[in-house]
Formats: sequence, C-alpha cells, structure tokens
Amino acid sequence: MFSVTVRDHMMIAHSLRGEVFGPAQQLHGATYVVDATFRRPELDPDGIVVDIGRATSELKSVLGLFTYRNLDDDPAFSGMNTTTETLARVIAEHLADRIHAGALGENARGLTSISVTLHESHVASASYERDL
Amino acid sequence: MFSVTVRDHMMIAHSLRGEVFGPAQQLHGATYVVDATFRRPELDPDGIVVDIGRATSELKSVLGLFTYRNLDDDPAFSGMNTTTETLARVIAEHLADRIHAGALGENARGLTSISVTLHESHVASASYERDL
Amino acid sequence: MFSVTVRDHMMIAHSLRGEVFGPAQQLHGATYVVDATFRRPELDPDGIVVDIGRATSELKSVLGLFTYRNLDDDPAFSGMNTTTETLARVIAEHLADRIHAGALGENARGLTSISVTLHESHVASASYERDL
Amino acid sequence: MFSVTVRDHMMIAHSLRGEVFGPAQQLHGATYVVDATFRRPELDPDGIVVDIGRATSELKSVLGLFTYRNLDDDPAFSGMNTTTETLARVIAEHLADRIHAGALGENARGLTSISVTLHESHVASASYERDL
Amino acid sequence: MFSVTVRDHMMIAHSLRGEVFGPAQQLHGATYVVDATFRRPELDPDGIVVDIGRATSELKSVLGLFTYRNLDDDPAFSGMNTTTETLARVIAEHLADRIHAGALGENARGLTSISVTLHESHVASASYERDL
Amino acid sequence: MFSVTVRDHMMIAHSLRGEVFGPAQQLHGATYVVDATFRRPELDPDGIVVDIGRATSELKSVLGLFTYRNLDDDPAFSGMNTTTETLARVIAEHLADRIHAGALGENARGLTSISVTLHESHVASASYERDL
Repeated sequence: MFSVTVRDHMMIAHSLRGEVFGPAQQLHGATYVVDATFRRPELDPDGIVVDIGRATSELKSVLGLFTYRNLDDDPAFSGMNTTTETLARVIAEHLADRIHAGALGENARGLTSISVTLHESHVASASYERDL
Repeated sequence: MFSVTVRDHMMIAHSLRGEVFGPAQQLHGATYVVDATFRRPELDPDGIVVDIGRATSELKSVLGLFTYRNLDDDPAFSGMNTTTETLARVIAEHLADRIHAGALGENARGLTSISVTLHESHVASASYERDL
Repeated sequence: MFSVTVRDHMMIAHSLRGEVFGPAQQLHGATYVVDATFRRPELDPDGIVVDIGRATSELKSVLGLFTYRNLDDDPAFSGMNTTTETLARVIAEHLADRIHAGALGENARGLTSISVTLHESHVASASYERDL
Repeated sequence: MFSVTVRDHMMIAHSLRGEVFGPAQQLHGATYVVDATFRRPELDPDGIVVDIGRATSELKSVLGLFTYRNLDDDPAFSGMNTTTETLARVIAEHLADRIHAGALGENARGLTSISVTLHESHVASASYERDL
Repeated sequence: MFSVTVRDHMMIAHSLRGEVFGPAQQLHGATYVVDATFRRPELDPDGIVVDIGRATSELKSVLGLFTYRNLDDDPAFSGMNTTTETLARVIAEHLADRIHAGALGENARGLTSISVTLHESHVASASYERDL
Repeated sequence: MFSVTVRDHMMIAHSLRGEVFGPAQQLHGATYVVDATFRRPELDPDGIVVDIGRATSELKSVLGLFTYRNLDDDPAFSGMNTTTETLARVIAEHLADRIHAGALGENARGLTSISVTLHESHVASASYERDL
C-alpha cells in the first residue's frame, strides 16, 4: 500500500456544548495543523499516489472554508459539536467529494482511502479515516 | 474510523539482559515521550472519541507508576526485559484495564482499540496496538 | 550563559483590528504552543537555572488566565491588538512579575532575562525577550 | 501488533518526467528523512521486534546506495520516475531482501511487515507498506 | 526585543568543491526547510513586528529564485560553494534588500535585524544573522 | 554571524540531590537529544562554519563518554548534581577542548562561540553557551 501526506493549517473560533468539555464550553479557538493522507495499492502511470501540488492546493481550498471564522456562526455546523474529531471527518468528506469530482485529476480516481489528522496542540490530535 | 491521540512522557532507569543489547546491558536510562491513541468506528453522543482531558489524566496516572524510577527494582518487571516494546504493551494494558473499569467514562466503552507509541529518542520509537 | 525552556499551550479566540490583518479581522482563534526560556550567567546552589517543576506550573498558571477565552472580551486587552507578538510580551511580563514576587523560589532572583515564544502554527511564531 | 521505527536521511539529486511534475521536471534535489517501521504480532525471545542497532545500521547501509548521488545517472532507476513514493518502495524492497537474507538476525525472520516513509519537507511525505 | 519567524522550504541540486565535503563533492541535492526571523525592539503601530502574510510571501518569492534548480548552473553562484551557510546568507541578503525596498511595507523599515536558518535534515542546520 | 547546529542523543541514568528535585532524587534516567551549535562571524576558506561531518563525529564521541551509563557512578561527577544544565556545560567544555586541540580541523580555530542544548523531553530543555 502506498500513501502520500500533505500538511496545512487553519485557525478558527468555536465553543462546544456538553459538560464533558469543561472550560471549552466557552468561546475559544484553535490552530489545527492538518495532515491529509491519500492511499492506493498501486501507483498511477506517473509513478505517484496523487499530484502533491494539486493535493496541497485542494487541502488549502477546503481549509479556506473554515479558517479565520467562528464556527459557531456557520450554518453547516448548526446543531453539531465542532470537535476536533468532527472537523477531521468534515474535511475528509470535502476531500472525498473533490476526488470523486475529478479535482485531483483523473488518475486520483484510483485512490482507495483517505485520512485526515488535526493536531490541536503539541500534545493532542484527532483523526478520521474512510474508504473512497 | 476515528482516533484521538494524547502525549505525555516518563523518565526511567533500567538495564537490559541479552547480548543483543550491547552497551544497553549497563544501567542507563531513557525519556519516553508517550503517545496513546484511542480508536472507535463512530463518535459517542458528545461527538468525541474519548474525553481528551480524562484520557490525558489517565495516561499521566499510568506513567506515574513508572516515572522517576529504576525499573530494575520494580517487581512487576521481574524476569522481564523492560524493552521499549514491552513498556508500550504494559502501558497499553494499564490503559485498557482503566477503560474497562470505566475510568474514562461510560461512553469510552465504545472504544474498539488502542495503541501506545514510546519515542525513546529523535530517531527511534516502538509501538503496541491491541483491540479492546 | 545558561538557560532552561519549558513548554505548554493555550487555546483562545480573538479578532484583530487593522487592514494589515486581512481575514484575521474576523473573529477566529489559535492554539499557541508557548516556550518560556529563563536565563542566568551562573547556576544556583542546586546546579540549576530554575526549578523546572515550578517554572512549568507558573507558566501553566499564567496561560490559565487566557486559555479557553475570547480575548476580545477581556478588559485587560481593551484598546489593544492581541497579536502573537503582544501576547508573547504579556506572558513574559506576568512571568517576570512572578519571579520578582518569589513564586519561582528565592534562587530564581538570580535570573537575568526571560523570553517567551508563541508558535501559532507549524510555519509561524513570535517571541519577546526582556531583562529581569 | 508490535512495531519499531528507526530514522535516518539521504540527500539526492534527480529530475522527474511528466507534465504533472511541473518545475520538478528540472534537475533539482531533496533531503529525504526516512522512517523504517518493522512489525510483528509477538516479540522475539529477547523481548524486541528487531535489534534497533542492526535495524539502524541496515537502514543506513541501504540509504548509502543513494545518498550524495544524482539518481538520474543510476541505471537501477533507468526508465523509472524516482518519485518519493517509488523511492519508499525501493528502500522497503532492499530492507525486505536483507531481512530475508538474515542481515537483521535470525529472530528478525519473525517480522511480518515493514513500511518506509520519506519526509521530503515539513509539509509532504510518502509511504510504502508491504508484507514480508 | 520582539521577533517573528516564518517557515517555507526549497528543493535544490548542487555539488560542493573541496576535499572537506567528501561525497558531497558529487552532484546531489537537499530540501532546505527555511526559517526567516525578523527582529525589532518595539512593535509597529499595528502591534506587530512585520506583516506575517507579507513576510511569508516574500520568503516564498526569494526561495522561488532557487527551488527546483541545479545551483551549479546558476551564474549567481559561479566560483562560490553553495554551502548551507552560504545559502542562508544569500537568502538573508535578498530579504534585507526587499525590506529596504519597502516590499514588506513602510512599517517594516523599523526592523533592526534578520536571521535565516536552513534545516538540511533532522540532524543538521545552518544560520546567518545580520543587522538591517 | 554564522552558525551550524548538529544533533545526536545519549541515554543515561542518574539521581539528583536536593529537595528541589522531588521524585528526581530517586535513581531514574533520561534521553537527552543534544544540539551543538558552532558560531563564527565569517566563513572559513571552504565557505563553512565547521565541517558538519567532523562536528557530528566529535559530538558523538563526546556523548559516548556518558551514554548507556549511570552518571552517579562516574567519578567525574562526584560531588556534583548532573542536572540538565550542568551536563550541557560539561558537553560544551569537552567540545571546546577538542576545538582547541584541532580535532575539528585547523579552520575550526576561527570559531568564536559554541552552545549546547539538551532536550530532556518534548516540553523541557536546557542550554549552555560560552565563548571560545
């Protein structure tokens, strides 16, 4: 199995609902350093998993939907806790949609799974992995 | 599949028995930077894999059993080489026991596997992964 | 010259005023991974720059004034841009006050300077350094 | 499942053929920080996955085949794009051959899979994983 | 004293002349992860050392002069060893020229020094620092 | 001012004397990831601060005096606390002696200062800097 990982980041404000979140129930924020990993069992005709340049620019474009925003005001997250885990899944879904739509090129249709990891600090991160 | 990872560290002395260990047969020591990863296929009702605060404090509590100690003097390791691999398994077993005992909350019973990675330097690490 | 550095983090929301900040004029947030460095020309009688345990707990206490908050609502920052640079200075001032008040121990009065670095992502950071 | 990871690096020149590579079609170069991971379900009689010393020296020996070279001039890569993904596979194949030849010791025959990750910068990496 | 640091990278081929360089006399290459640090004693009227966005884009523009190239073919380096140290100085000179030309904004004229660090691997780096 | 930094590590056991050290008064251990930095105002005739290969091998040789040992048994540290700060100074003194003795080459006599940083975990480090 082959994989390629690219990294970017986003900076958002949000609050979380539920006693389990303690002080994170208050409006606060986070930098998420985001790793997106693309996997496939065999390389494409160019000898790559995915075009790193395109993967990087699509990841930046997806993160651009959220960065420099207060996620509490985003209707897409209405009624949903924007936990690190949930954001990892949302970003992965956006990337999957773009792969299926051909935004990473025709050869990227050979990708079989992706995962997205959000590092919220030097001591905590969350990931979501799904098949394509 | 979702996962959450938290990080802490411990500082121990020990020696290893067996020619394969070369100079590490002498009493020496290590800082282990420890990553504990918790996995489950679906998020709990709060939208999380596990309470990061509780996961962090249980990891610290488990590492507290070993840190600032000479593992050669610990009866729990009698007759056993305290290799990085073995310590990863021992820490994972302690975390699994605590999950089963409810120390990470009722919702944490939905966890399906954990892994523990010990970074012994900037160039070497060992991991152990098990189902719950 | 000797130094000791300890690391912790805080997660805050804020917005910045001024065209130069572009989209960061919107309410957003950041994780700041914070390094506090303490310096002195000679070690104290225990052979240390500062008690790492105490330095770590004072840094955590200072970051506790800000973490999980929206800095736009904090009167301490009224009329002030909470840029990464400014936050580095504010944290350094708090640490300096605590050193002068004896919170890091009598021997810590031998410290001659401190610096504080805030990493706002994997690609940007800001620092402030001052004499004591 | 247990694993051990060791790290080293190599510094090479090369060029890539194909429009998808854009400016990387020109002769340029890269430092690859290389992580080699060895896995097995149970530890060997010494309580290890593999001798970290031997694993480190075999990895260095494999990287020595490529480092400080222009890969465009290496007949082993003739007609092949030396992408990060391909180099990860080539290094993994060399390590697998050495494991099978006994270079990591008799006990290393219990290894069941290996993976190799090449970090080409702070924001991009590629991996290859295979069974043994 | 305040500072701001931004990070980017470049990937180049080159060879070095002189016995001291051993196998690096052959054509090979490197990824340089580049940190550019900007310093000034007081913040500008916006409360910053320098516009991080502009600093990042000027650094990218300077690295764009070299990345994906064989430095042995660049007349700018004719008769000069493109050591990591030398490249750190060359990049710092380019940044200094751009600061003096106003490319980082009028307020950036208050900067008093810059330094540039090139990380050539996980175990080696070189820096150059100069006044403005 | 130019500098070059090289990294290696050592793994030692020790105990510390003094109430300030709390549980670190017990025999325990540490991995120290060690950065040695060499500085000079102008490059040598080869265009370098110091031969990175030689600097790396001298650092490894100095760390070889301590690694895989219990520092409590080393007469060189008798009556002295082997704090991270003290070890940074001791390693720096050894490197300075070797520079003065010509072990890093004749050109290394142009070095004007060195510093040594010991990272004892992902959240704490200590440094010592001195002129040559």
